[in-house]
Amino acid sequence: MRKLVLSALLACGLAPAAAQAENLHIGLPTAAIAQAVVVPAGSETIYVSGITPKPVNADAPKGTTPVFGDTKTQVASILAQIKAILATQGYSFGDVVMMRVLLVGDPALGGKMDFAGLMAAYTQEFGTPAQPNKPARITSQVAALVAPGLLAEIEVQAAKKAK
Amino acid sequence: MRKLVLSALLACGLAPAAAQAENLHIGLPTAAIAQAVVVPAGSETIYVSGITPKPVNADAPKGTTPVFGDTKTQVASILAQIKAILATQGYSFGDVVMMRVLLVGDPALGGKMDFAGLMAAYTQEFGTPAQPNKPARITSQVAALVAPGLLAEIEVQAAKKAK
Amino acid sequence: MRKLVLSALLACGLAPAAAQAENLHIGLPTAAIAQAVVVPAGSETIYVSGITPKPVNADAPKGTTPVFGDTKTQVASILAQIKAILATQGYSFGDVVMMRVLLVGDPALGGKMDFAGLMAAYTQEFGTPAQPNKPARITSQVAALVAPGLLAEIEVQAAKKAK
Repeated sequence: MRKLVLSALLACGLAPAAAQAENLHIGLPTAAIAQAVVVPAGSETIYVSGITPKPVNADAPKGTTPVFGDTKTQVASILAQIKAILATQGYSFGDVVMMRVLLVGDPALGGKMDFAGLMAAYTQEFGTPAQPNKPARITSQVAALVAPGLLAEIEVQAAKKAK
Repeated sequence: MRKLVLSALLACGLAPAAAQAENLHIGLPTAAIAQAVVVPAGSETIYVSGITPKPVNADAPKGTTPVFGDTKTQVASILAQIKAILATQGYSFGDVVMMRVLLVGDPALGGKMDFAGLMAAYTQEFGTPAQPNKPARITSQVAALVAPGLLAEIEVQAAKKAK
Repeated sequence: MRKLVLSALLACGLAPAAAQAENLHIGLPTAAIAQAVVVPAGSETIYVSGITPKPVNADAPKGTTPVFGDTKTQVASILAQIKAILATQGYSFGDVVMMRVLLVGDPALGGKMDFAGLMAAYTQEFGTPAQPNKPARITSQVAALVAPGLLAEIEVQAAKKAK
């Protein structure tokens, strides 16, 4: 009898587990981002704050872009920080389901956002042989970020099966 | 005995199902958007990338608004694409819980965003007799989108009960 | 036998409950926001629309900032409204996991966003002895919000254990 009830419990335990499939990344294989990502029921979600780059040149005039570098440099710094934050909670870039990218117009580009710079850093980490998953993403050019000199800020949400 | 354990299993199966109520859309019946939407536990979520409109006039000068049309035209194109993406995963507009709208100032309106144009297209799809559900939403005017001529980009999240 | 099956059912009920830990707020104790927030499986989520402030001065010229007050005043009005919306569904500020803040440049500050004004109102409600939880957050300056005179709009997502 105990065994049967145990079976029932185990079966119950398996029932929610069965609903915990991996995230489903939809879109063209050739695209750099997913068209959409489906997160199955039974997942936990991590919301990461908007992350800004670390300074790379302390000698540059305060509040200018060279303090943080160009967009590619800034995005690479941001992604490295996000990767580290995710890792503390057992997440990796393969678990990222949504990415929101805010860019600021680059004075060196006549005030236009450096979308190519974003892509140059982004494609090092997403859609690679080592990490093929690509998140859903939205990118826009805003008027300004929290500190002058910043050209990029990124927030992500990641999700994975509950343990 | 087997029957009783089966009953237990079925009951277990029903327990999580009971938590899987429909999304709850809160707000004034007269408002075009929900004040908030509650997604119950046991739901799956789809994150759709920011979607931009398809060109409508290949003869217009490259990088100008007429390539994509006015804001109403652009939003209608975006919503049609989002609807199609959602449908591939078994979602409809009634499942949309959050919508983030980015508009660009329309040169034809002195650089102001065309909020009325957004609403004209949006209200064809949300809060109608055929599709009464309205998502939570946030709308802002950004400095620029990925390509010149774009006046609108929209991202949504939808959620529904796990099967 | 009935009792045993009942035990199985109760145990089944507890199994999902065990996965429903509280949200985990990660980050420096001294920081005003969380670096990230982990929402466990088995949570329900509320998406609140972007909220704008209520007018405070009906006599001010229509479409000007004094109608709504400075950024601190506007953010305080927004947070009070969000708190009330959350409360209708049994949520409190301690359940807020993500906050997205859109600011508009303040004419009184040479067109720069008033980040200090945001913080002055925000820190009254988050990271206090009475309400120690801090959400993940992203803040940017956009070109414009829906109505002239608005300096701030905020959307939040909150999550809590399913009942």
